Amino acid sequence: MAGFDLRMTAAEVDALMLRAFPDADRETMWKVTALSPGRASIVRPYADFMLRPGGLISGPNLMALADSAAYALILAHIGEQLMAVTSQLTMNFLRGARPGDLHADAELLHLGRRSAVCDVRLWTESPEKPAAQANVTYALPLPTSAA
Amino acid sequence: MAGFDLRMTAAEVDALMLRAFPDADRETMWKVTALSPGRASIVRPYADFMLRPGGLISGPNLMALADSAAYALILAHIGEQLMAVTSQLTMNFLRGARPGDLHADAELLHLGRRSAVCDVRLWTESPEKPAAQANVTYALPLPTSAA
Amino acid sequence: MAGFDLRMTAAEVDALMLRAFPDADRETMWKVTALSPGRASIVRPYADFMLRPGGLISGPNLMALADSAAYALILAHIGEQLMAVTSQLTMNFLRGARPGDLHADAELLHLGRRSAVCDVRLWTESPEKPAAQANVTYALPLPTSAA
Amino acid sequence: MAGFDLRMTAAEVDALMLRAFPDADRETMWKVTALSPGRASIVRPYADFMLRPGGLISGPNLMALADSAAYALILAHIGEQLMAVTSQLTMNFLRGARPGDLHADAELLHLGRRSAVCDVRLWTESPEKPAAQANVTYALPLPTSAA
Repeated sequence: MAGFDLRMTAAEVDALMLRAFPDADRETMWKVTALSPGRASIVRPYADFMLRPGGLISGPNLMALADSAAYALILAHIGEQLMAVTSQLTMNFLRGARPGDLHADAELLHLGRRSAVCDVRLWTESPEKPAAQANVTYALPLPTSAA
Repeated sequence: MAGFDLRMTAAEVDALMLRAFPDADRETMWKVTALSPGRASIVRPYADFMLRPGGLISGPNLMALADSAAYALILAHIGEQLMAVTSQLTMNFLRGARPGDLHADAELLHLGRRSAVCDVRLWTESPEKPAAQANVTYALPLPTSAA
Repeated sequence: MAGFDLRMTAAEVDALMLRAFPDADRETMWKVTALSPGRASIVRPYADFMLRPGGLISGPNLMALADSAAYALILAHIGEQLMAVTSQLTMNFLRGARPGDLHADAELLHLGRRSAVCDVRLWTESPEKPAAQANVTYALPLPTSAA
Repeated sequence: MAGFDLRMTAAEVDALMLRAFPDADRETMWKVTALSPGRASIVRPYADFMLRPGGLISGPNLMALADSAAYALILAHIGEQLMAVTSQLTMNFLRGARPGDLHADAELLHLGRRSAVCDVRLWTESPEKPAAQANVTYALPLPTSAA
């Protein structure tokens, strides 16, 4: 996509998350695996508690990682502004998510002054077999001068 | 709404959930609080682990209860067919969900042979101040004779 | 819903639309039929050109009226600020819309400083048999002082 | 995406549309411009009537083409089964669509026995500057043997 510029590196986003969620379990916390203008990928290591009865990764875990991927992607483009909040999340469940590290590939569709829209694909087996697709919209903090 | 008939009572739905999720913590499990043709309400008792940093109920907990409310509503109308699966969930986050028992009021918009669509409102303070609104679509199991 | 105050009457919204769309055909233009805090209903008179092959009202006509109902509802609450623009529209098609005057009942779920979210039900036969349900999000113009 | 096989060519989809919509204006009808497993692009020639006040392509025209692109993509993969119907359409409006030929690039996210889910990007200026993104879900006709 045209016109996207990064303001943070993958390592900076990971470090910001650890500061923002000091109580998170570092073993199962997601990490940024790839970051380029307009795109970010994150992965969450597999853990048994992510499963629902039936042996597939649960919907809330999929939704949480979709939201995290969008958050990481947006922060990487707007810089350290933790007050961005999710205003909408739409999940299309495409096939059962088999146990495995959970990957989320996020693409920035629009970054405006007041909101950002991302497309996210979630998978465990292969990116060619997405378990779910999400659209995530964030409301962005107004610049201080406009408050 | 016209033409909706219940096949289960609130107590039967609660009992079905306990059988389906035998490992669930009964203290924090949601329960059906109201059920009528086309409508169901459920509540999940408040627990501190539902909060995210900032002291509001987390998005994944809101999404999980929206999904559960739709599931309870649909099962109550189609009977014990546990294989109904969520095909889409859209969440509009409207305001921060303050700590408190989490309520979900679900309305059946459409119940077809192959899918069901629900509108769900989530709240802790009062139904007049919804924290989130969701649309949830379930794919329904085909009758055995068509398999 | 709590805390919604009207700033325009139904007649004022209708008059505003005629000024904003001077070329619209007044015979087939929608009109506000009911307006109260948090709720608005509009109707568009039936015309054959609204049909698609198969004899049902076409999807684009349903989507257009859902968007109009949200617009009317929001304007009635924020006053004459024509710059509100749709940022998202989700349509759930529930059953075929048989020929007839097309009604849209809109409910305000949230009205913030920067965005508004509405739930809209569309029907021709009866409100108990909705042809479609929509969620519509509008981005609101920033107050001039913040520009 | 893995596992998608085409059953029709671009020319066959165009011809099917002309037969299905015999009254459509061939000058302004969309045509398939690219088709490969899992992906289809269509374009609708610009015409002044596609504009709304303000000089941008109207929302209903964007939504109609998003739906058409998904329809073309799905038919190309399932063959001549005209009874596929849209069950849900979500539009994210990203920026104003300036006058020009309207392009829609559709990607198949999932093709099941009962439903198909597509991601669609709409643009007039350049694919790098999408005017809107849509998710479109179609309900697929059951095989005759299951009726």
